[in-house]
Amino acid sequence: MTVERSAIRVGMVGYGFMGAAHSQAWRSVGPFFDLGRQPAMVALCGRDQEAVTVAAERMGWHDVETDWKQLVTRDDIDLVDICTPGGSHAEIAIAALEAGKHVFCEKPLSNTLPEAEAMVAAAAKAQERGVRSMVGFNYRRVPALALARRLVADGRLGTIRHVRAVYLQDWITDPEFPLVWRLQRDLAGSGALGDIGSHIVDLAQHVIGDRLTRVSGLTETFIRHRPLSGGASTGLSASGGEGIGEVTVDDAALFLGRFGGGAVASFEATRLATGRKNAMRLEINGSAGSLAFDLESMNELSFYDGTQPADTAGFHRILVTEPTHPYVAAWWPPGHLLGYEHSFTHEVADLLADIAADRDPTPSFADGLQVQQVLTAVERSAAGDGGWEDVGR
Amino acid sequence: MTVERSAIRVGMVGYGFMGAAHSQAWRSVGPFFDLGRQPAMVALCGRDQEAVTVAAERMGWHDVETDWKQLVTRDDIDLVDICTPGGSHAEIAIAALEAGKHVFCEKPLSNTLPEAEAMVAAAAKAQERGVRSMVGFNYRRVPALALARRLVADGRLGTIRHVRAVYLQDWITDPEFPLVWRLQRDLAGSGALGDIGSHIVDLAQHVIGDRLTRVSGLTETFIRHRPLSGGASTGLSASGGEGIGEVTVDDAALFLGRFGGGAVASFEATRLATGRKNAMRLEINGSAGSLAFDLESMNELSFYDGTQPADTAGFHRILVTEPTHPYVAAWWPPGHLLGYEHSFTHEVADLLADIAADRDPTPSFADGLQVQQVLTAVERSAAGDGGWEDVGR
Amino acid sequence: MTVERSAIRVGMVGYGFMGAAHSQAWRSVGPFFDLGRQPAMVALCGRDQEAVTVAAERMGWHDVETDWKQLVTRDDIDLVDICTPGGSHAEIAIAALEAGKHVFCEKPLSNTLPEAEAMVAAAAKAQERGVRSMVGFNYRRVPALALARRLVADGRLGTIRHVRAVYLQDWITDPEFPLVWRLQRDLAGSGALGDIGSHIVDLAQHVIGDRLTRVSGLTETFIRHRPLSGGASTGLSASGGEGIGEVTVDDAALFLGRFGGGAVASFEATRLATGRKNAMRLEINGSAGSLAFDLESMNELSFYDGTQPADTAGFHRILVTEPTHPYVAAWWPPGHLLGYEHSFTHEVADLLADIAADRDPTPSFADGLQVQQVLTAVERSAAGDGGWEDVGR
Amino acid sequence: MTVERSAIRVGMVGYGFMGAAHSQAWRSVGPFFDLGRQPAMVALCGRDQEAVTVAAERMGWHDVETDWKQLVTRDDIDLVDICTPGGSHAEIAIAALEAGKHVFCEKPLSNTLPEAEAMVAAAAKAQERGVRSMVGFNYRRVPALALARRLVADGRLGTIRHVRAVYLQDWITDPEFPLVWRLQRDLAGSGALGDIGSHIVDLAQHVIGDRLTRVSGLTETFIRHRPLSGGASTGLSASGGEGIGEVTVDDAALFLGRFGGGAVASFEATRLATGRKNAMRLEINGSAGSLAFDLESMNELSFYDGTQPADTAGFHRILVTEPTHPYVAAWWPPGHLLGYEHSFTHEVADLLADIAADRDPTPSFADGLQVQQVLTAVERSAAGDGGWEDVGR
Repeated sequence: MTVERSAIRVGMVGYGFMGAAHSQAWRSVGPFFDLGRQPAMVALCGRDQEAVTVAAERMGWHDVETDWKQLVTRDDIDLVDICTPGGSHAEIAIAALEAGKHVFCEKPLSNTLPEAEAMVAAAAKAQERGVRSMVGFNYRRVPALALARRLVADGRLGTIRHVRAVYLQDWITDPEFPLVWRLQRDLAGSGALGDIGSHIVDLAQHVIGDRLTRVSGLTETFIRHRPLSGGASTGLSASGGEGIGEVTVDDAALFLGRFGGGAVASFEATRLATGRKNAMRLEINGSAGSLAFDLESMNELSFYDGTQPADTAGFHRILVTEPTHPYVAAWWPPGHLLGYEHSFTHEVADLLADIAADRDPTPSFADGLQVQQVLTAVERSAAGDGGWEDVGR
Repeated sequence: MTVERSAIRVGMVGYGFMGAAHSQAWRSVGPFFDLGRQPAMVALCGRDQEAVTVAAERMGWHDVETDWKQLVTRDDIDLVDICTPGGSHAEIAIAALEAGKHVFCEKPLSNTLPEAEAMVAAAAKAQERGVRSMVGFNYRRVPALALARRLVADGRLGTIRHVRAVYLQDWITDPEFPLVWRLQRDLAGSGALGDIGSHIVDLAQHVIGDRLTRVSGLTETFIRHRPLSGGASTGLSASGGEGIGEVTVDDAALFLGRFGGGAVASFEATRLATGRKNAMRLEINGSAGSLAFDLESMNELSFYDGTQPADTAGFHRILVTEPTHPYVAAWWPPGHLLGYEHSFTHEVADLLADIAADRDPTPSFADGLQVQQVLTAVERSAAGDGGWEDVGR
Repeated sequence: MTVERSAIRVGMVGYGFMGAAHSQAWRSVGPFFDLGRQPAMVALCGRDQEAVTVAAERMGWHDVETDWKQLVTRDDIDLVDICTPGGSHAEIAIAALEAGKHVFCEKPLSNTLPEAEAMVAAAAKAQERGVRSMVGFNYRRVPALALARRLVADGRLGTIRHVRAVYLQDWITDPEFPLVWRLQRDLAGSGALGDIGSHIVDLAQHVIGDRLTRVSGLTETFIRHRPLSGGASTGLSASGGEGIGEVTVDDAALFLGRFGGGAVASFEATRLATGRKNAMRLEINGSAGSLAFDLESMNELSFYDGTQPADTAGFHRILVTEPTHPYVAAWWPPGHLLGYEHSFTHEVADLLADIAADRDPTPSFADGLQVQQVLTAVERSAAGDGGWEDVGR
Repeated sequence: MTVERSAIRVGMVGYGFMGAAHSQAWRSVGPFFDLGRQPAMVALCGRDQEAVTVAAERMGWHDVETDWKQLVTRDDIDLVDICTPGGSHAEIAIAALEAGKHVFCEKPLSNTLPEAEAMVAAAAKAQERGVRSMVGFNYRRVPALALARRLVADGRLGTIRHVRAVYLQDWITDPEFPLVWRLQRDLAGSGALGDIGSHIVDLAQHVIGDRLTRVSGLTETFIRHRPLSGGASTGLSASGGEGIGEVTVDDAALFLGRFGGGAVASFEATRLATGRKNAMRLEINGSAGSLAFDLESMNELSFYDGTQPADTAGFHRILVTEPTHPYVAAWWPPGHLLGYEHSFTHEVADLLADIAADRDPTPSFADGLQVQQVLTAVERSAAGDGGWEDVGR
């Protein structure tokens, strides 16, 4: 493998669903984006030598490691990309940062607040030495959502009053769906709340440029026992095995929130919304306009401009495929859609640009921690009588 | 029945589907519209004494007649509303006009061109004596379509280049659906072409304010034989009887057109578009903007303003329920929908206002004749080799 | 006025927005529905003799009264229809019931719980004498929502897990919109919560056939002072006057709920959702299927049948205009839309049928009281720390 | 570059819009699809040495050529991928086939019928030696459209009666948009008809599994003169230069068609449909069901199953992201969308699989020729009086 001198040499840990998405991003970013420094896909790390070798070959990684501790200290690695389940994020990220590697860590930042706080501290220390870190809330880089943020920032919505955010999936509606790792608290940290609720909390805050100060809510586990998982699960599908186990995470979480700037909000994350596959929807109402988005139609943004004359006022269905739209100029002509994986390509494009420019990328580990503080406050409220809890208390 | 001196006294012939719609319009127009002269529902005419008596009582008509010739010469009638099948329109309308009655005639104006021409001549003669006539293309008064016309007239679309109009229904998809009068040429004149194709021809011309000069097309009858109709058919439903008869009208008609001003157009009318119940859709593209409408969502108009900045350009979904929209102020607050029957109420509101103001209402009989000339040209093209035919040749 | 012996003779109090809607229902029900007993529009009651006379003539009422106490004791009145603001409902309804008149009372049942309780008691007492009462949650009779209830009742959704209900309007987004009666607690009882939140509480419970047991939530008034209302306000529009007054009701209310059967729910009612005119949306997810509805597209119901094969599974856009759908057979052929006012016609059709059949109509006053108990619990939670409150405590 | 022995070694000619799309396909197919033989991106060919070198490096091609004649005879090339404008397709393809290379040729097959016929002859001759050829109608491999074909083939639509296909773009609405090569007959062959009309002809025939036998139609050039193109144009955008030139291709084409099996059809292709960016829409009505698709929402297919009970019948919005859907299992979990470029990845996945299995891929050059015969018949009709023309006369 010949690597350009200026290349940013990447080592990735984990090669499941997220690993596949990140690999596609690392492969695709160069051909489409003008980068000061190109990525080089140096090594993929996984515990099973044979499996990781097969994966590396398939996904385009030059070399493999079976011990992440080896990976994070290799001289020929500049950046560590962490795609493992949340429980291992802290250990890997902190070691990588201490070894002077930039870190790109999938969300959620970690499974616990103390881990997240330690990661933020490590990131701050590393940052003093020019080492960068970023947490992977990929949906920020969906062009329609980046455009949404721009419209709010440009004042097109006026004062924000209402936020409505739901993330609806249905992949565990069937009670026979087995007890995969995402349904076990010790491995996944939490259920729908942490997995997909974290996305809508991050996005709502990011798009309107404000933060939740108080939340109140509930969590619910509708199906409390499930068959034990028999074998390998990939992505969001799995096959059942023998025996029955307890589901130790939430199936759904609903909560209300108040933003610092006065907006009120409702949130819902569930994996049992029959028929909704990936319906992450965000609606925002401001004094001057409104926005609506649905990830199941991710190339569209609905925008209501309250300053229009009444006769022709209406929600614009903006097809976010124009060259003036965020990230779009790198791709195809107007009307040619982008997909899920492009959000990851945009993430690494920005990350590479920030590293090349000696800038801190966003969302930072601190941003990731703050999202977890919100979720923790929701869990506190849900565990109590459902009343208001301060975020970051 | 006490009738105000200034009232316009109405006699209606026919009490099927259209009769029910017109009756609701005559009943509802007074409470919602500011009228110079109120209507009075004086008499309903039908051949079956018992049936027409029941219908009159139910629909709010004060008196009945069993012979339309009696009705059109009654002294206490100012306006004759014709809701019978097209084959009888000419005779009734001409007699009524000659008797000095205003005439409101359902579309199509008639089943044949000579009849339509005679009606136009009678209307012209009557008009000299202040007697008014109007043909019932009710969809012109759907608020969204009236708004569409206004936007085009205001230049919001620039030069019109494309018109796309379809009217899709599916009520005769089932080959066991019987041979009702609408499927017999001697009674109905033509099939989908005349019944629903006439609507889209009228609307396309009305909304863009231009006329078709040439057309070319095809007609098709997919199901050539059907069970004889056993009994009464109402609206668009019927029950089968015994025996088999020949379908003598078209099931579908497709044609292309050229407008005087340079726009090109495609039209399609069919009763076998499975799943489409009343999908009258109109799309218009101009140099400065575009419009789209679907009767199955009749309170909405989609408008693309080509002068918008690219970032937020998109089709506006205008909910046509604002007080500034045509006809809407008479009804409910914003966001409260109107239905099918309101288009008829708007028709009679305008007709009454025109009569009160001594103005000619539109669409005129001449407008109805011109639509039939278009349809006749389509039939000529379809009967030949499908080449261009001049309208009104 | 000649009135059939069997007619149900109606007297109506109030002739604003709701009075116009009810009048259209009373006028239209006879021509379209097969009724055992026809309504007769005997008298309209309002305080201003001149204004009520004009209104009565316009809306089709035979006689007028200026004192509701006279109206409710007239011998020629069988049913009192109450369309006044909520603060007067209790007094009028109780007097009418005591006078042996059937009562049809617009929602909300009343502005206070004690009033509502007194009304329920009066209704129960009257019911022993065969006197009927009904509260006007008209949206239950929108065909799509009646179909929704039927699908749930038929088990097509399985066990209900999620309810999501919002009612979004924007008519007071402008801070210059004046302080109309609906924004004053003494007249309106509450704001968005009582006016439109009551609709979604009633509907959610009605459609899924279950009741909320606990709620927690918040209310917010974004614009705390407004110009005093200068003159007459009609419907939801008004013109400003001089001076500034305090808004004493909520602009918005958000709350979570738990149903007796285990479903969790979120609710939001607001009048400041810029661009949303009448967006009452209801989503339900069950173990076997899901439903979605939006009042801005009120002739449609989205239904997901979880038992479909994966290849063709998807939300059905049901155009609720088939003769098999609730109430539809009375109207037009498939694909011909109904509007807002039809829900009232369906209400009175059912009410008249129930009276003719000596049955209790629904929703009952007790149903109306229970909705207010829910809203009161929300207000308690909002006034406290946002924690759970039992309904009907 | 180390190439596996079994690899299929690819040389590509042209590196504009289509070259970028194909390159992404060649890069992405391996990581996501199980292939018997992997592709190797051996060489990219373009006339400008410097530009092609930059492009090759960016897009991942190992080597460059500046003369396609060199490329097609290289020993280390197994397959030639042709991404140049249509005027050069025949010469390159025939030379490559004669050199024993498999050929993947972008649509349209060529600019003229004689060229296309020569290509088909060359392909037939090469096929005898096991050399494969395929024309690039990429939209056949959009999962929703592949599913559409499957549903028709499975009989879910019954007898096909109606096809409605439009391809609407707006990129030359502005009269100041310059005279790029796509607007010049000598380079582009034809305008909207050949460029995008060819897609809808191919798709309509492919999805319903039938062929057009007769067509009649019109073509129109609304803007007959445009500024000369000043510089490089990329994709569908360009900047103007000096002087004015004549547009020698159609801006729009509208035509009707009859299929062998009895269906009737309408087609429209235009580049002046203001606000429509890439609206390739296909609607099909059969005796048992219907389909609707819009490329601007390319992950969705609307399906109406006419065998459903009336109560819940409606168009299903199928989100075509389930593992049972064509091509989808290779990618992400349900609800995670694919984009435009994935259709090319699916093309090369199938092409590689066919080559590995010694099968003829589709669409064949003969399929490409037949599409051009359809378009030629449209041009004949448009040049004459618009009457019917036999396809392939």
